[in-house]
Amino acid sequence: VKLDVCFTPNELSGVDLSKKTVVVIDVLRATSTIVCALAAGARSVFPVASIEEAVRLAQVLGREDALLAGERKSLRIEGFDLGNSPSEFTPERVEGKHLVMNTTNGTVALLAAAGAGHVLVGALVNLDAVARAVAELGKDAVALCAGREQRFAVEDAVCAGLLFQRVRALKKGARYGGDAAVTAQLLASHYATSVPLVLSKSAAGRQLARAGLGADLQTCADMDRLAIVPQFRDKQVTL
Amino acid sequence: VKLDVCFTPNELSGVDLSKKTVVVIDVLRATSTIVCALAAGARSVFPVASIEEAVRLAQVLGREDALLAGERKSLRIEGFDLGNSPSEFTPERVEGKHLVMNTTNGTVALLAAAGAGHVLVGALVNLDAVARAVAELGKDAVALCAGREQRFAVEDAVCAGLLFQRVRALKKGARYGGDAAVTAQLLASHYATSVPLVLSKSAAGRQLARAGLGADLQTCADMDRLAIVPQFRDKQVTL
Repeated sequence: VKLDVCFTPNELSGVDLSKKTVVVIDVLRATSTIVCALAAGARSVFPVASIEEAVRLAQVLGREDALLAGERKSLRIEGFDLGNSPSEFTPERVEGKHLVMNTTNGTVALLAAAGAGHVLVGALVNLDAVARAVAELGKDAVALCAGREQRFAVEDAVCAGLLFQRVRALKKGARYGGDAAVTAQLLASHYATSVPLVLSKSAAGRQLARAGLGADLQTCADMDRLAIVPQFRDKQVTL
Repeated sequence: VKLDVCFTPNELSGVDLSKKTVVVIDVLRATSTIVCALAAGARSVFPVASIEEAVRLAQVLGREDALLAGERKSLRIEGFDLGNSPSEFTPERVEGKHLVMNTTNGTVALLAAAGAGHVLVGALVNLDAVARAVAELGKDAVALCAGREQRFAVEDAVCAGLLFQRVRALKKGARYGGDAAVTAQLLASHYATSVPLVLSKSAAGRQLARAGLGADLQTCADMDRLAIVPQFRDKQVTL
């Protein structure tokens, strides 16, 4: 079993994903939020490529059943029901609902992974559960970091490294497939005891703090809090 | 002075380079080779985007004055005079010549940087000289790693980290501008005493060894051998 890492969705180009497990990671914040939303009882999350597509799909699904969620520059999109803070996605707001979601990085990465054998949604909050799922599937795996506007984001790389450290502990013979995987593993070892600090010092974390959303950093750094593995298929993410 | 790193040319998108110094880095092998070629007396190197463009430009320059250089899958392009091994670019072959060059990653990165205030050609072989030039220019700087087919390449990231460590030692108040710069610096510290090993274990290094070009690894790892700073402007790289 080969474990590979892409630091941005652009790095996927040319990689055949059809027989692979892809774990999409956007720690700050889309995949953390999706995991929290499904844990809070949301029925599904539809990642979409634009605001216009979100509005259209929400209408098709019916505005009683579907909520619009997403951000631009960290803040809720105007006219949308929810932003991209995990704490907004309470059972009171989302239970039984479809969520139609568009964000700057995370939903882009999910859509880029759509052709893969399995697409799992990973974050620090469900790290252990995802590692077990990857090991059980037993296929070559790619950790696809959402990054930040197609640039490297350290918190996603650290999460990918921690994930694959755990997969290797569970799956004998699993090996790192390339330079990015080896580097992610080095980052994970280096920052193993300071993950919350990585988030707060990262470019994405500093932007969130400036936007008054610093509380999200703690929620997103709360490792292994949720033992669920959302899967993306047929255009929606479900449990 | 802000020091930023892009791990692939794709990461440049949206960055305004017009007032910045960009150092293009493709340790294995294009920028190492360009530095060696100019040190061996080549008059200039023209990076171009395709084989067809290389042939056309060499005809315009005159086949007596211009040599074609470049690789596909590490090997010399059919019909070209030279491949992409630094050791091929001897004074006997290249002195006084224009070189027209097309490679898989390095020339792509050079062309992507063309709009910048200054574009310098960096590698391990001229690391110290480039660090001094960046510090003397005194502008915000971007280390643009060529990477490998638009993916992360560890040897370029280590070179970028080593470069900016030296710039910071020379330039008071220079600071790292983003997640990739901080990560490159961590890689540089971690691998400071094992740079040749990084090259030989990297994906690019292993491909070169498989292609019978393992000797290039030592040439490209030979730090600070050449105190020259090639600059790319008006479509050509010169001293």
